This record gives sequence, structure tokens and C-alpha cells, in this order.
Amino acid sequence: MSWMDDINWNADGLVPAIAQDAESGKVLTLAWMNREALENTVSEGKATYWSRSRNRLWAKGESSGHAQLINEIRADCDKDTILLLVRQTGGIACHTGRHSCFYFKLNDHSWEETEPVIKNPELIYKSET
Amino acid sequence: MSWMDDINWNADGLVPAIAQDAESGKVLTLAWMNREALENTVSEGKATYWSRSRNRLWAKGESSGHAQLINEIRADCDKDTILLLVRQTGGIACHTGRHSCFYFKLNDHSWEETEPVIKNPELIYKSET
Repeated sequence: MSWMDDINWNADGLVPAIAQDAESGKVLTLAWMNREALENTVSEGKATYWSRSRNRLWAKGESSGHAQLINEIRADCDKDTILLLVRQTGGIACHTGRHSCFYFKLNDHSWEETEPVIKNPELIYKSET
Repeated sequence: MSWMDDINWNADGLVPAIAQDAESGKVLTLAWMNREALENTVSEGKATYWSRSRNRLWAKGESSGHAQLINEIRADCDKDTILLLVRQTGGIACHTGRHSCFYFKLNDHSWEETEPVIKNPELIYKSET
């Protein structure tokens, strides 16, 4: 598909993908995509990423239930970054149980935790072994 | 500075940094930072990045005048991505003269240009040789 060939994949065949909540406007996550992840994201209407730590496709929400449903897919001017506008299932994007992963705020040269924990992460992942 | 040591710099000593407009809420740019870029960003209150193509520090707006003034600096849960909340000088973050760099919208398997051009890019960079 030519629209995929336009993307400037990095040396590892990946691009960063930002997910922004279509409702709150908050930036939720930054993860990585390869071609297959982006293809699945488009065809299924839900964000799929490439997990660099687990070295496999990762359908966001596959274990937590907190999927990211796609409203819109954008690329930047040099097409080396993807922006997803999403509806975040449960309002929780972060494995810590928060709305957004960006909860550390720099305050006087230290990282301060912000953003309430909406759900105990032990309850999010309780079905996993 | 210990808050910097907490950051998970990649193998090249870089992290991606997302800039989000504090007023419009739009995601403007994704660029990269090394330690020095982040230090300068904090000390000067304006975004400085590491240009991977030019292999040097790049104070955003140094040639265009379109600086990004810092409201807030955030990091994500695993501290491998930075989020800047910024006031965008001139309202133009993109070298194409648009508010945001994310102006390509995926529409029926092709990239459609969106977002108005606020200023002719030839006028933005006219003083450069």
C-alpha cells in the first residue's frame, strides 16, 4: 500500500506513535509501530503497537482491556511519526491505572507524581499469571 | 542532576520529546533530545532539541523565530519519553507554516493534507542563505 511506503520507518522498521485522547485532549502514550502494527490498527480500528521489550505485536488492551479505539490517524510533515486520536477504553491508558502515562511533572529539579490513579493496577491485571 | 539520570536515554543518548500546545491542545511536533538539549530547555524555558539530521543542538525557532516557550515538562511512566506543554510563538510549529506538523490525515488509504498554512514558508525563512 503506497500510503505505507510514504512512511519513513527507522533503521529497525519502526516509527513512534503518539496516542492522544480525542475527548480530554491529553497525550496518553508513546509507543512504536512497525508496518504490521499500523496495518492492524487501520484494519481493526484499534491501536496495535510493536513491543520492543517483548519483541512482538501488542494489541493495546489485550490483557488490561484498555484498548484505544481509533478516531483518526495522522502523520507529521516528514512522515516519521504517527499521531492517533483515540477513545481510551476505561479512560485508563497507563499500566499504573492512570488516564495518561505522562504523570511525572518536573518541579524544581525533581519528578513529582501527578494525575490520580483511577484503578488499582493489581485489579487491572488480576487475571494474568 | 539526579532527575536527569532517571531518564531512560536510548542507545544514542536520546529520548523523543513531544510538544503539545498549552492553549489549543494540539500535538505540534515530535523531536529528539539529548541531556544537553533538555538542560538548555529547562534553564532557558524554551525548547531545544538534538537535530539528528544536522547532528547538533537545535534551539527551536533559532532561524524561524517560532520558539516553543515552556509551560510544563512531563515524563511518562517509564521515563523514556518527554512531553512539553508549550506556548508556540506565532502559533506556527511546522516549517511548512502550519500550526502543527501533524497535518497529514489518513483518509481511505491515502494521506490527505489538512490544517491551513498560516504563513508562507518562504517568508518564514527568507533571511536564511
